Amino acid sequence: MFLKDKSHGLYGRGSRRSRESGVGNPGGEHVENFTFFNPTKIEFGLGKEQTIGRHLSEHGVKKVLLCYGSERIKREGLFDVVARSLAEKGVAWVELGGIVSNPVISKVREAVSLGRAHQVDAILSVGGGSVLDSAKAIAAGLRYDGDVWDLFVGKAGIESALPLFAILTLAATGSEMNAAAVVTNEETREKFFIMSPALFPVASIVNPTLMRSVSREYLVYSASDVIAHLIEGYFTAAEHPKLQSRLVEALINTVIETTEALLVDPEDDDARGQFAWAATLALNGLTSAGVSGSSWPNHAIEHAISALFNVPHGAGLSVVMPAWMKWSLSRNPAQFKRFAATVFGVDTAEQGVAALEAWFDKIGTPTRLSQLGLGETQIPAIVENALGNVGAFGIADVYTRETIADILTNAL
Amino acid sequence: MFLKDKSHGLYGRGSRRSRESGVGNPGGEHVENFTFFNPTKIEFGLGKEQTIGRHLSEHGVKKVLLCYGSERIKREGLFDVVARSLAEKGVAWVELGGIVSNPVISKVREAVSLGRAHQVDAILSVGGGSVLDSAKAIAAGLRYDGDVWDLFVGKAGIESALPLFAILTLAATGSEMNAAAVVTNEETREKFFIMSPALFPVASIVNPTLMRSVSREYLVYSASDVIAHLIEGYFTAAEHPKLQSRLVEALINTVIETTEALLVDPEDDDARGQFAWAATLALNGLTSAGVSGSSWPNHAIEHAISALFNVPHGAGLSVVMPAWMKWSLSRNPAQFKRFAATVFGVDTAEQGVAALEAWFDKIGTPTRLSQLGLGETQIPAIVENALGNVGAFGIADVYTRETIADILTNAL
Repeated sequence: MFLKDKSHGLYGRGSRRSRESGVGNPGGEHVENFTFFNPTKIEFGLGKEQTIGRHLSEHGVKKVLLCYGSERIKREGLFDVVARSLAEKGVAWVELGGIVSNPVISKVREAVSLGRAHQVDAILSVGGGSVLDSAKAIAAGLRYDGDVWDLFVGKAGIESALPLFAILTLAATGSEMNAAAVVTNEETREKFFIMSPALFPVASIVNPTLMRSVSREYLVYSASDVIAHLIEGYFTAAEHPKLQSRLVEALINTVIETTEALLVDPEDDDARGQFAWAATLALNGLTSAGVSGSSWPNHAIEHAISALFNVPHGAGLSVVMPAWMKWSLSRNPAQFKRFAATVFGVDTAEQGVAALEAWFDKIGTPTRLSQLGLGETQIPAIVENALGNVGAFGIADVYTRETIADILTNAL
Repeated sequence: MFLKDKSHGLYGRGSRRSRESGVGNPGGEHVENFTFFNPTKIEFGLGKEQTIGRHLSEHGVKKVLLCYGSERIKREGLFDVVARSLAEKGVAWVELGGIVSNPVISKVREAVSLGRAHQVDAILSVGGGSVLDSAKAIAAGLRYDGDVWDLFVGKAGIESALPLFAILTLAATGSEMNAAAVVTNEETREKFFIMSPALFPVASIVNPTLMRSVSREYLVYSASDVIAHLIEGYFTAAEHPKLQSRLVEALINTVIETTEALLVDPEDDDARGQFAWAATLALNGLTSAGVSGSSWPNHAIEHAISALFNVPHGAGLSVVMPAWMKWSLSRNPAQFKRFAATVFGVDTAEQGVAALEAWFDKIGTPTRLSQLGLGETQIPAIVENALGNVGAFGIADVYTRETIADILTNAL
């Protein structure tokens, strides 16, 4: 993952230039200093989940906390495969199921207690991004003496974490190959992130055929999430070199093409595989390396919506993105025009944004607050919550109460 | 770096299908199982060479073998910067200069003796791909009791190597972020490669401004080398998923654009930076992950030319590539047509190959054997030498004496 020199982050702080304008430097092109380091081993493909016991035992793990979400992994047989692989290598485990979408800190706390009681020496996530992000928080929490939420609010830094392993069952968040995690505090309605080199998974297994049973809804939300990861830096960077723009466009075009293929045929494993690998590459540091002054306004705003109303993150993002783009396209017209041409083959910046919105409509992910059951009445609450996020993303000076309200109004 | 399950290699063995046809499976698209693992830390940008002492000391290095090529790094001040950084962190060093282009095994042997005598505990390469590939061989040789050439001919495997660090002064080979190295045995005229996860550099410093003094000639040879790394898999794969094709095209288009910019203005650091990062990404496993049955025929043939006649590797490649393409385009017309459209905006496979050859001519890297001072007379010797390479690349069944001669005849 790309670790910025100063911010150690995917979620880079806005540079002076991007802070001033809110979005990128039109036409700017300059490769910024960076450190690229991503030690996660990816095991990609059919049957790779059978190697999990070997990965753990090679790492010296004796007892693992096995985290998962619903009981689906038991019904569908994946749990048995994992259990057999662990048993074969003499790795003991403690189970923790029931992790939900938009994962919550209370569950993380429960898991930290359980892991401490059983003296586990590693964490294994079997599930999608919500399970994996929870697992990262658990891994850090087990090496921290205080309350794990302290790590999210900056009361304490993450010095170390238990070694973390993952078997992915849904491709979207990129968490399998990065060092970040997002969790919601359901009491305070804060959806915050942590990030530390200690949170890179040691090994992540990505078997696209395990994702066949992902619902049509979650497939299109995932497409929205991956596109969001790609466009944040692309449009907000103070400088966006053409090399990095081309990589982003390669990934967005792949997501669009493979999503359409999967909507026609959910058994198309080749499309599923390309979708999954694009999702990993979209947030593993590849596209952000060398990009300066980018920021994460769409996430800062969406996290408010899902923290308050528990909507799927990808559904929230497909509402926020077109609204944010309409607000920002006049601030970086060259890059929006480039996007229009390279992704949708249309001429103007406005047409490009309209084409993305139309594509979201076509695949069936929401583009209006009303589709989330929200409206003008809820905007003030979303704005207030989002104001609690923009500081952490380093964009509080541009994303004021008025700006966020303007953007959300575009989504009515 | 992408480590194939079976071959541990960038230089994947040909699959049955590619072995049968010699090139790819027209229209095939299938994401293959793979393991992606690349633990090298890249420090990219201005002034990063000043961090070298810190990287070594953080890794516990006490005494390093500092390898370099010509005395240019002393004249231009880089050596002093490195020495100061090492001294500040209390890291001692032993110098070994005089490593040449198309690096030779006798020099590697000399370095292994020197390193053993001084009991160094790490290797530092300051230079381009030749110095770095030598450094990899030295690092492995210092952990092997026999003659280091044994590792190149498969007499022994590479179990471990001394930790390796690099400061890059020329972007081309991608060696700074992969686990392979190529060295010539000048007695036997064999140019062979080694590859092992033990050979990943721990950290590589890529400061594009250190490359400003690269000559015009070596710039265009480097462009040829990077393009060669990208097209081998692109055209030879049994299956080449569109995602990976798009990544390759993003990188080739960047190389073309930035090479042209640098020929106009060698001080264009932004172009230099994008060129350098494209060179790294071209051979760090990114583009080969998920690609099945690819092979390295252009390298197998070119290594024969530079082993025999000591021509610059990139110059040899720009001669071999168009000749090989003319031979192979009828075997994978869809991918050649795609290349023509996405890289040169022309319609047919033949036009695409002609456009690449014309571009090589335009930037001034050779496209004919005669420009290397070679002709029909030398073809038999090149063929015989190349036959010694094709086995290691897993393509001996297709690349017979007759085939290689046919390809070389295209370069007359």
